Amino acid sequence: MTLPKVLLGEIKWSHEEAKELFDGIADITILDKSIDKSSFIKELSPGGKYGDIVAILRTYMPVLRCFDKELIDHLPPTVKWIATNSAGYDSLDVEALKAKGIYLSNTPAAVDDATATTALYLIIAAMRQFTNAERSLRDLKWKPASSAVSYDLTGKTLAILGLGGIGLRIAELVHAFPMRVIYHNRRKVEGAPEYCEYFEDVEEMLRQADVLSISIPLNANTTGIVGEKWIRTMKRGSIIVNTARGGVIDEDALIRALEDGHLGSVGLDVLPNEPHVNPRILEFPNITLLPHMGTETRDTQRKMEVRALTNIRDYLVHGMGKDLIPEMRT
Amino acid sequence: MTLPKVLLGEIKWSHEEAKELFDGIADITILDKSIDKSSFIKELSPGGKYGDIVAILRTYMPVLRCFDKELIDHLPPTVKWIATNSAGYDSLDVEALKAKGIYLSNTPAAVDDATATTALYLIIAAMRQFTNAERSLRDLKWKPASSAVSYDLTGKTLAILGLGGIGLRIAELVHAFPMRVIYHNRRKVEGAPEYCEYFEDVEEMLRQADVLSISIPLNANTTGIVGEKWIRTMKRGSIIVNTARGGVIDEDALIRALEDGHLGSVGLDVLPNEPHVNPRILEFPNITLLPHMGTETRDTQRKMEVRALTNIRDYLVHGMGKDLIPEMRT
Repeated sequence: MTLPKVLLGEIKWSHEEAKELFDGIADITILDKSIDKSSFIKELSPGGKYGDIVAILRTYMPVLRCFDKELIDHLPPTVKWIATNSAGYDSLDVEALKAKGIYLSNTPAAVDDATATTALYLIIAAMRQFTNAERSLRDLKWKPASSAVSYDLTGKTLAILGLGGIGLRIAELVHAFPMRVIYHNRRKVEGAPEYCEYFEDVEEMLRQADVLSISIPLNANTTGIVGEKWIRTMKRGSIIVNTARGGVIDEDALIRALEDGHLGSVGLDVLPNEPHVNPRILEFPNITLLPHMGTETRDTQRKMEVRALTNIRDYLVHGMGKDLIPEMRT
Repeated sequence: MTLPKVLLGEIKWSHEEAKELFDGIADITILDKSIDKSSFIKELSPGGKYGDIVAILRTYMPVLRCFDKELIDHLPPTVKWIATNSAGYDSLDVEALKAKGIYLSNTPAAVDDATATTALYLIIAAMRQFTNAERSLRDLKWKPASSAVSYDLTGKTLAILGLGGIGLRIAELVHAFPMRVIYHNRRKVEGAPEYCEYFEDVEEMLRQADVLSISIPLNANTTGIVGEKWIRTMKRGSIIVNTARGGVIDEDALIRALEDGHLGSVGLDVLPNEPHVNPRILEFPNITLLPHMGTETRDTQRKMEVRALTNIRDYLVHGMGKDLIPEMRT
């Protein structure tokens, strides 16, 4: 009996689990780490090493990172399922996948805890002006000369834009202080904790916020959505943190608001053109930056890998994986 | 009627409150910010500007910072109460105060929230290797080349050394994840939340910990108490964070454990010889440092100032302030 072939991008923590999950179910191949794009496409052709694969685990390795129409058009007709090892899937062309009848799954809940913890870190760093203080200490100047105002989280108001799994987890974590939690979402979230107050009107929410935390996906509707108007609707001295995607913020508007002091502080795990860093954002002392580390823990990476692999397994065994992206659900 | 005279060190946020608290009760004077030690001592003599003061609000201004026997011996006999605007009072000579019959109060509960938030920040930064990642991004290298292992907080074990007000608040904040909370204290804390597990044996607690957070006061018994033996009792790869006083850690032992990788990461808000920074600790990428900012928020500074002032007021009105330090209670 020939088992269906599954191609896995680089996995880091779940080699054992991968073996167990596909034992007797699929023949797994790990993609050669150093393969370049043209060789990869060649191997996807009929007769190539990957010419009859049924499913792909997409990871952040170079040839799989940008899953655009060109790459998708080269996939053999045998491919039925892509499992991306990520919560976001803005780097995959969903329409091109649909056109070829290929299913796409992501790893939604697996990232919630680690990403929300990153948001909490950025909220504390921004409200307390901590990272600038560390730079001052490391320059052997002890405390910073400038006396930026810093705040306790307790009793302040956190606005969450997008109350999905990550937003809900952020709400849980800051409720320990407690911060007051207000949120905007396409619709009121049924079953959200009582302490999360829904605002249908984004601007009304922004007016009441001390801190805005962003947890919305990046797509054509959300690109640059946190721009001049929304930022200026917030109170002077407000704080913005972003653990979603860099592109949801209009970076120029953000920089203007830092320049004229409208924003008191900013914390970013994500940038619009990663790994490129706009040198202008490095000029502000009151900004905390991370190189997109929201999900980067050993624990969460393993959880994500296992969840992505399980979607492929479930497709092979049951014909459907449980994390099929919303755009493909009927 | 002559009102008793109260001398206040520099206050930042509570000028209004100070006026109200002492209205009709005391004559308050704010200490000249630029005064040097010899002029200050001269003004404390009979006939000097401060020769008949009854109480002093001690703040971190230079002439009041080190409240040693020399300074205490120069206080006029009219002084009956010192209120230090801090939780720790290791910079004041308690025995010398006792010998002169002067009461000392601190600001215990007021600092709990801000200091515990600082500990939480250091725990996240250390477990996630965040501050090194920010340095890498700011050097335009995006993610760090070295792949230090990082962890989710959720499900890991936090050991709290000293479950006073700050330690209890740390427990509350990490319980949101939840982390498992274990603690050692001189005695089991009555009324501590159920999820805080008491260990009479420090070393048994340390063996079970992923992270150790230190919240004990500095005194002759605790100097260097977190030393070679305790550090090596922890698991390889463990994390230590300190928001208490730098002197409770044996810095040489800490450096050795970072050098040979026994400690996975460290977060310090306090150092043994502040504001001096031992250049050796700056060599480790996996260390997060803050210039003693545990209580530095506008909200908490105001709370502390008001609490310290209230102790003086209560002494003047009722003969006793409620934050008299434990060593002076009979």
